[in-house]
Amino acid sequence: MATAAVIAASEVLELTEPLPLDCGQQLEGVRIAYEAYGTLSPARDNVVLIQHATTGDQHVASPHPKTGKPGWWDRMVGPGKPIDTDRFFVLCANVLGSCMGSTGPGSLAPDGKPYAMRFPVITIRDMVRAQVALLDTLGIDKLYCVVGGSMGGMQSLSLAANWPHLPERIMVIAATATMPAQNIAFQEVGRQAITADPNWQQGAYYGTGKAPDAGLAVARMAAHITYLSEASLTEKFGRRLQDRASKTFGFDADFQVESYLRHQGASFTNRFDANSYLYITRAMSYFDLAEEHGGLLADAFRASDARFCVISFDTDWLYPTELSRKLVHALNASGAQVSFVELSAPFGHDSFLLEVPALDRVIAGFLSR
Amino acid sequence: MATAAVIAASEVLELTEPLPLDCGQQLEGVRIAYEAYGTLSPARDNVVLIQHATTGDQHVASPHPKTGKPGWWDRMVGPGKPIDTDRFFVLCANVLGSCMGSTGPGSLAPDGKPYAMRFPVITIRDMVRAQVALLDTLGIDKLYCVVGGSMGGMQSLSLAANWPHLPERIMVIAATATMPAQNIAFQEVGRQAITADPNWQQGAYYGTGKAPDAGLAVARMAAHITYLSEASLTEKFGRRLQDRASKTFGFDADFQVESYLRHQGASFTNRFDANSYLYITRAMSYFDLAEEHGGLLADAFRASDARFCVISFDTDWLYPTELSRKLVHALNASGAQVSFVELSAPFGHDSFLLEVPALDRVIAGFLSR
Repeated sequence: MATAAVIAASEVLELTEPLPLDCGQQLEGVRIAYEAYGTLSPARDNVVLIQHATTGDQHVASPHPKTGKPGWWDRMVGPGKPIDTDRFFVLCANVLGSCMGSTGPGSLAPDGKPYAMRFPVITIRDMVRAQVALLDTLGIDKLYCVVGGSMGGMQSLSLAANWPHLPERIMVIAATATMPAQNIAFQEVGRQAITADPNWQQGAYYGTGKAPDAGLAVARMAAHITYLSEASLTEKFGRRLQDRASKTFGFDADFQVESYLRHQGASFTNRFDANSYLYITRAMSYFDLAEEHGGLLADAFRASDARFCVISFDTDWLYPTELSRKLVHALNASGAQVSFVELSAPFGHDSFLLEVPALDRVIAGFLSR
Repeated sequence: MATAAVIAASEVLELTEPLPLDCGQQLEGVRIAYEAYGTLSPARDNVVLIQHATTGDQHVASPHPKTGKPGWWDRMVGPGKPIDTDRFFVLCANVLGSCMGSTGPGSLAPDGKPYAMRFPVITIRDMVRAQVALLDTLGIDKLYCVVGGSMGGMQSLSLAANWPHLPERIMVIAATATMPAQNIAFQEVGRQAITADPNWQQGAYYGTGKAPDAGLAVARMAAHITYLSEASLTEKFGRRLQDRASKTFGFDADFQVESYLRHQGASFTNRFDANSYLYITRAMSYFDLAEEHGGLLADAFRASDARFCVISFDTDWLYPTELSRKLVHALNASGAQVSFVELSAPFGHDSFLLEVPALDRVIAGFLSR
């Protein structure tokens, strides 16, 4: 399990055709940064496409270039690991709108200046459309499996619904087919925190030497709380004090949980672009697969012959099991093959990223045949 | 039920003695703004002290002077209402540290300038100490009942623990005896949102014509989500659009829930002071009644002969029933008389402020004898 994944490619591909978007516009010269692990089989039938979460990236099992930390799913992807790179050709692309090499608001527009807020508002389906264009370019017309957690799972569902000929298996972890009001609300708070920062400058902060780091940090702190369970926060920090024997009667980070949150906020600004955060959370709030398919979620899946595996976590209050259950009901109503499991894990929404052996077994099992 | 409560007093009282604080400092010339309803009985034995929540105030059953809206517990307090002003003399004081007339960071320090961040960090017990000083001044040495919801309930517990001779009945609604890590985390995000706003100016914004309204609004938005249940957000807003037929593919408030949150944030800044928000949330995060009493919560109540009534709401995820249950266990362990009820109400933490007839019955019943 300690063997590193073999990177087959870490590339930025530029699409030759304009990318049409749900908003009606199209984007020229879209670049897609992706990584690939393992070896593509001669029959090109061993591709596992991984789709990343809101602030994730293509560095699934390779060190993050800015933080130096292991890839975000290093524990899941590699030789002999649940997503076994000895068997599968594993692909992951940075989503459209992000800031890790794929085209986003920080990229240069055709006029040579950063898009900033001129970047079109994109959707989850647009992100997937870009990935499908990547697959086309790579000559891949069949996915052994597509797998995503959180916003990744929404992309997996969008792929299943809109490109039903592509995936043979679809694994959706801690996600939803329709963004509920509470999550829209949290996403809005994050965006308000960013746009309230004067350094945001209506989004035109690139090259000014100032960025809305303070606002972005607040957005990240608020979001981060929602990724964890109350129990895990209590277990990890409780009311323990940070490097002090007693409360200071001040506004320093007296509590470990305060210090931890501040660190999460500050370090996030070193690796993520504030405008990307606006666009990606906007795409999430817009996500409603039922609406895209005439209002009935089951209709989204009628053209799919794929097998679905839906996974939720019992302590995830951001994308609770109830949302997965609704999805599974719709899949069942569509006649799809679907298995569904709620895993018990203490870490809340972030469980899909953390040490949950039962998740490893479900993923390995679903991929085995 | 439509009869208005009779205001007996709406006063600001200045304490003649300095107020000692938990931090070790003392405050001179503390002013306490309070309202009273009903008539004090000759025996002075019909006093109900109401303690307000984080951003509440003394205007329990009178219109808010800034917003013109009815008092925050108008539905509960008045002639013939559950807290019956025909029978009880109802008192509520604006908490120390707040901004509705009681001394807080926006008040003038002895040097004639606003305290701002020179205001000492206060605790829940300090807030209660100020109320006890008010009671002393008014010649009240016995409370028929003390009642509080949310941070008000924490004050009620602090009063019960530290001034056990005062209250005969204690009603604690949607509160906790120890602030848990997740709530500390949310409180920290709110403070970070405020202090990230350049208009905060290290707290010295009074008289500058600029205030950290943007940061305060973000803090309020984040907090407001935690006051509501996911189900109530879905019921009230769902994914409904705000005055438009379709999504705009922009960053306006397309969704009703976004528009609602923005309104909540903006209107809050018209009635609340950002520094008060810092100090009051700090007091909440510091609240740990067990720690104050040697680490064993039961010990906090050993000196009390009062009857306790503890109330939680099944959809309250900010102060969930589990926290009330821990409190009730401690009360039972201390040998106190305690009744406990989890009410079913759809509104989340805010249920204590809203139309929950079962709450009316519990309150009226507990006060009846």
